[in-house]
Amino acid sequence: MRTLTQNTGLYTDFYELTMAQAYFYSGKENETSIFDYFFRTNPYKGGYIVFAGLQDLLTILSNFSYNDENLAFLKQAGLKDEFLDYLKSFRFKGKIYSMREGEIAFPYEPILRVEGNMIECLLIETLLLNYLNFQSLIATKACRIRSVIGDKAFVDFGLRRAQGLGGIHASRAAIIGGANATSNVYAAFNYQIPVSGTQAHAWVQSFDKEIDAFRQYAEINPDSSVLLVDTYNTLKSGIPNAILIAKELEDKGHKLVGIRLDSGDLAYLSKKGREMLDKEKLDYVQIFASNQLNEYVIKSLNEQGAKIDGYGVGTELVTGNDAGALDGVYKLVENAGKPCLKVSENIEKTTLPGRKKVMRYLDKDGKFFRDGILLFEEEKTKHISHPFHQHKTTEVDGYEAEELTQKVMEDGKVLIDQQTPGEINAYLQKRFAQLPDEHKRFISPHIYKVGVSDEALNLKNEMLKGIRKKMN
Amino acid sequence: MRTLTQNTGLYTDFYELTMAQAYFYSGKENETSIFDYFFRTNPYKGGYIVFAGLQDLLTILSNFSYNDENLAFLKQAGLKDEFLDYLKSFRFKGKIYSMREGEIAFPYEPILRVEGNMIECLLIETLLLNYLNFQSLIATKACRIRSVIGDKAFVDFGLRRAQGLGGIHASRAAIIGGANATSNVYAAFNYQIPVSGTQAHAWVQSFDKEIDAFRQYAEINPDSSVLLVDTYNTLKSGIPNAILIAKELEDKGHKLVGIRLDSGDLAYLSKKGREMLDKEKLDYVQIFASNQLNEYVIKSLNEQGAKIDGYGVGTELVTGNDAGALDGVYKLVENAGKPCLKVSENIEKTTLPGRKKVMRYLDKDGKFFRDGILLFEEEKTKHISHPFHQHKTTEVDGYEAEELTQKVMEDGKVLIDQQTPGEINAYLQKRFAQLPDEHKRFISPHIYKVGVSDEALNLKNEMLKGIRKKMN
Repeated sequence: MRTLTQNTGLYTDFYELTMAQAYFYSGKENETSIFDYFFRTNPYKGGYIVFAGLQDLLTILSNFSYNDENLAFLKQAGLKDEFLDYLKSFRFKGKIYSMREGEIAFPYEPILRVEGNMIECLLIETLLLNYLNFQSLIATKACRIRSVIGDKAFVDFGLRRAQGLGGIHASRAAIIGGANATSNVYAAFNYQIPVSGTQAHAWVQSFDKEIDAFRQYAEINPDSSVLLVDTYNTLKSGIPNAILIAKELEDKGHKLVGIRLDSGDLAYLSKKGREMLDKEKLDYVQIFASNQLNEYVIKSLNEQGAKIDGYGVGTELVTGNDAGALDGVYKLVENAGKPCLKVSENIEKTTLPGRKKVMRYLDKDGKFFRDGILLFEEEKTKHISHPFHQHKTTEVDGYEAEELTQKVMEDGKVLIDQQTPGEINAYLQKRFAQLPDEHKRFISPHIYKVGVSDEALNLKNEMLKGIRKKMN
Repeated sequence: MRTLTQNTGLYTDFYELTMAQAYFYSGKENETSIFDYFFRTNPYKGGYIVFAGLQDLLTILSNFSYNDENLAFLKQAGLKDEFLDYLKSFRFKGKIYSMREGEIAFPYEPILRVEGNMIECLLIETLLLNYLNFQSLIATKACRIRSVIGDKAFVDFGLRRAQGLGGIHASRAAIIGGANATSNVYAAFNYQIPVSGTQAHAWVQSFDKEIDAFRQYAEINPDSSVLLVDTYNTLKSGIPNAILIAKELEDKGHKLVGIRLDSGDLAYLSKKGREMLDKEKLDYVQIFASNQLNEYVIKSLNEQGAKIDGYGVGTELVTGNDAGALDGVYKLVENAGKPCLKVSENIEKTTLPGRKKVMRYLDKDGKFFRDGILLFEEEKTKHISHPFHQHKTTEVDGYEAEELTQKVMEDGKVLIDQQTPGEINAYLQKRFAQLPDEHKRFISPHIYKVGVSDEALNLKNEMLKGIRKKMN
């Protein structure tokens, strides 16, 4: 397979190219346009998302181009020579304003805004959506899982069931959302993430006796062994054998790190296992658990008093089960200085026109109170209103206000410092502590209110009126 | 991001490396082992899977290695110098036997078998599972969608909502499963897939009037325009304007290809749209539909007589909604000439030991009758039995039998010819026609019977007896 990093300009939908070509010939190619990135529905029936994927996006955008082989392919696909000449020297030179990676965001907020000419704004659309939608989906899942794990260990084990190469981005996003480490060596290498792993059934099976498999492994890894105890029988064979090995290690001045449960009832087995270990004064030997875990299972294990010190979470984490995708979209809100609107049969799908910004209002304890969408030029607003029921308003005057978006790219240059996923998670932790608990519930979380300023609403209403007039 | 093609050896879980290192020091590193790839549950509550991902897997395996930068990273992660030296010249030299890509497969069948030393078998595990699980998941989804689309157009539109870079593999698998084309330019370039696309709302919005947007686009693409008609109002504005453009094109000797509906009720709008177009003698103008489509929605649209000539399917196709992952596993079945077993609290998770093969028995019409799992040495079997209820047997003597796996890799070399995804789909089409209809139903499909030979079952039963004895 040809590498993506050398063929970045092709990571797009074909219609972006045919539209870009049409702009090229239309004389409209230098009109400045503004696109908003936002999503409509919180995944997992939750109350928020964790915004992620920004740094990867900016890195690939700063390298977005077409090589000769790409252009030959596009010619064959039907694009015209003059436009291909234009693409030859194409670079993305637009401006991007964005929330910080690791920020907590809510439906309909313009999380990120792209300003550039029509061609460059369109060519990057698919890539932008692909990167931001997926990493935000997984960072959000990881954050939910972290919220029930507390400060115990949480490791991403998902690569084998990840959606192909999506597993690379998934592991990064998992760390942003709250995992401590990953089993994915490539992601660890690429993103400076701690790497971690235990032992598989194949190791145990390849020895005649389970105890021999454990002993051999512990000999080679005397201070870092986590023994997998469920290959034959967890309570009758796996844990007793692990106890023997722990004693042997003690005799040599080493310590068994832990055991891993990977099947059966994890609550029951962990409690039994803890008893068996403690009885042998092996209270330092930790119990790790894996096997189709997610935030709901872990919450339930907690409630039943499972004695688990760390969790390996795989499939459900890296595929964002049960959501599959974040419904983020990228919509034109201004063109050639004029606000743009897309109407829809569905009132919630009608866009909010114009260049805008997002303000977050904090209460006196520093907790999130409301978010407000304002026109960019508005210094401030006294109150904000429900986006579809304008009579519902909230006063925000006097509340501490933060502007959530900053300029992150200009003229092909990334303006923010590189951060490791762990550093981004540190920011998320701070923000997550500011999010009131009622928005964190798994079942029917309270909806965080995002209001719109009168000026922004009036602009939309005026434009809608104009369109309705035209239609009738 | 560093490219995967130059860092293939890191696309693995960390425990594969620590186990490989332990084998290296154990003196067991040259023992031949055999691993089976199989899955347990049909995704989508369906009756089969379409096996996919093989060619990509073999390509990356033939290039699987560790460069100096990788080795420096692994040293830092704790691996030892002698083993890192070993990795320096590591290449995968094992044998792989596999079903053909595009084959229809069923739960518990050893779809693919790896034979090699323990180190090489382990190091490739994660990559193998990642590639095969995901592409099989998506090819299966595409096959289901194709089964309700008949011979109308079916285009993959999913890249923007795909799981990150997984979108690249998804588009390939979509074609294998039955899509005609993709919007994903990178995948088209990489895999020789037809590329396709229409027009976005942004194009329409960026003109003062919808008709101007349509006219401009049609002028530049006089023979390939598909106009998006739902930006303002489908029936009052979009379709009437498209009709005007179609007439203008006719005057110039061209033809409008079609219109696209992307919101609202697709059954209603397509029927109304068809009427409006036909009334103007534009029966050649096709109606394309998109917007959160999947096999169920399309089936329902068919039932309601929707007048749709082609479908763009995105999110649900490329993310395999509502499955998220195929539960494929890779299990040790033989080591150093001795069969291996993994027991489980769950009877269905106990593996089938030994080197095996899969036979497919055909009835006199050439349709799939039964599949049988035999030990590799068995020439043939007279009957096969239910894997967990051995008294349920079926005679297969006298049925035409096909052996489903062939050697596809040996000594680092790929032994099969490269095929395009479209060519692989041609094979699937042939096989899908041989699969009886009752296994294709979306709701409660009839379970296709996969039996096991007496010899294979006896081997397992003997080993289980031995283990139970040890436990008690």
